[in-house]
Amino acid sequence: MHSIEYLQEKIRQAIENETFTGKPDELYQPIRYILSIGGKRMRPLLTLLACDLFGGDIEEAIYPAIALELFHNFTLIHDDIMDKAPLRRGKETVSKKWNENIAILSGDTILALAYDHLININKNILTDVIKVFNKTAMEVCEGQQFDMNFETQPDVSISDYLNMIRLKTAVLFGTSLKIGAIIAETNAENLEHIYLFGVNMGIAFQLMDDYLDVFGDAKKFGKKTGGDIITNKKTYLYLKAFETADDNTCQKLSMLFNNPGIDNRSKVTAIKKIFLELGIDKATEKEMNKYYELAMLSLDSINEEESRKEILRSFAKKLIKRDH
Amino acid sequence: MHSIEYLQEKIRQAIENETFTGKPDELYQPIRYILSIGGKRMRPLLTLLACDLFGGDIEEAIYPAIALELFHNFTLIHDDIMDKAPLRRGKETVSKKWNENIAILSGDTILALAYDHLININKNILTDVIKVFNKTAMEVCEGQQFDMNFETQPDVSISDYLNMIRLKTAVLFGTSLKIGAIIAETNAENLEHIYLFGVNMGIAFQLMDDYLDVFGDAKKFGKKTGGDIITNKKTYLYLKAFETADDNTCQKLSMLFNNPGIDNRSKVTAIKKIFLELGIDKATEKEMNKYYELAMLSLDSINEEESRKEILRSFAKKLIKRDH
Repeated sequence: MHSIEYLQEKIRQAIENETFTGKPDELYQPIRYILSIGGKRMRPLLTLLACDLFGGDIEEAIYPAIALELFHNFTLIHDDIMDKAPLRRGKETVSKKWNENIAILSGDTILALAYDHLININKNILTDVIKVFNKTAMEVCEGQQFDMNFETQPDVSISDYLNMIRLKTAVLFGTSLKIGAIIAETNAENLEHIYLFGVNMGIAFQLMDDYLDVFGDAKKFGKKTGGDIITNKKTYLYLKAFETADDNTCQKLSMLFNNPGIDNRSKVTAIKKIFLELGIDKATEKEMNKYYELAMLSLDSINEEESRKEILRSFAKKLIKRDH
Repeated sequence: MHSIEYLQEKIRQAIENETFTGKPDELYQPIRYILSIGGKRMRPLLTLLACDLFGGDIEEAIYPAIALELFHNFTLIHDDIMDKAPLRRGKETVSKKWNENIAILSGDTILALAYDHLININKNILTDVIKVFNKTAMEVCEGQQFDMNFETQPDVSISDYLNMIRLKTAVLFGTSLKIGAIIAETNAENLEHIYLFGVNMGIAFQLMDDYLDVFGDAKKFGKKTGGDIITNKKTYLYLKAFETADDNTCQKLSMLFNNPGIDNRSKVTAIKKIFLELGIDKATEKEMNKYYELAMLSLDSINEEESRKEILRSFAKKLIKRDH
């Protein structure tokens, strides 16, 4: 089996070896740009890790692995248009650096490029791989649409929210792993377990992200905390707070979230204090741990030597317990 | 062999039998909407015609045929955002009826749905089919980007323009046919000929569209003439006029195109008059006929009985000489 560092280097090289050139420049420059500004390349890593776990040849999985990174970048380019986001990974977004039309089209092109990377595999597994990829592509769109709907929807429940992050974020983790596992030609039970391992890890990862946005150490976390509170984002913490609080506290929270006069610093401080009083930090950790444990159970169920699974176990551990 | 009417009915039924349902509604309603407002379903028809020509089983081609219609509708939804178009086929565009974000996402979803329809074929030909589909998807994006670039680019040549319409419109005609032909398992030479037949027919079709926008009979053509002149669109006629005219006439044309004070009716009348004086109507017909003849030559080269090709020959004839 290969180390994470070795696989990451493989991915880095594979992306570097591709030119992503074509005409007109307005279409391909944004693609080279978004791939150049980094990212953790987590999804292709998961594909290679899963392929390696089941004894597959990672050389066969490298192109499909890159397909998953390309797909992820397609979602970033289009999401940044919809969110009117100026920055991504500390740099200008494609829609900001160029314009929205170029972002729509270069996003479309990178999606076609993703499919083009996916098909460099044995034809016996091609239908299965594209099928799972298509399903996930649609689910990720559904998740993003739910996320947009929630901005104006008054009655979002916690289960609505968990379903949204499952679709928007978690299924792509599961599918990245599953595609690596299909390439390694493991059995149907293992495919299901590795998929659920990824999905539950993905949900835990997003809950952790929500948690760190409020309670994280800004220095270690790498971005300013409180962003979700400032934008009134209906995160797990937000929804859990309204679910937990009495009428009086709910009213106080509503006033804080909906008062345009309050400055951001005071708003974050006041809401964070209420969250702590309500035990929302603990509740979020509990929920996150629930999904983390579910992920571990799925990993336990995989019919492979324990020693081979260790690398995914420690990857998930690092990912979820990353910083607090 | 089957009649065009029979194949059109097959396509109509196949689309009608699909529900295109899912959650959230905001994502799937626009997909049902754009498919419900009609269109000529030309691309799936080409797929079935090509499959039939080479003796393939059209039942095997119906899903991929629908994929090409879905892909076409994906481009319409996204193009209408970029063009800020309020109407499509006489009805509100998705971006107008809902909003741009919903149009981006439902467009993305319909593209994934297109791929999902494409894979319902024999796995031996799957790689070839998806490869040609991917290439075309990228080319169509390139064509749209060139088209947008041309709006502000001062030095568009006629060959730039022909390349743009080849990418934006014509290759999808070629690919629709080629995919049907791959499913019928014909040989490589025939695949190339049927593809070029479609591409050249597509270029002729777009030139005819440019022509009819200026010289068509509004009633028969189904839309108001002069739209391209009003929006200063750099069509074949526009570019040919500037290429043909002397300095004096070029200046006159420039003034007419760039004068915001002139009313649309006078602008169209004056420019149409200059086009006629310059013989742009004849020149466009000549260029169109050139591509039409190229298409016919490709059809001639196909190694099949002449009687089997007749249906495609008369289809192309009707399409190009449709109304003037």
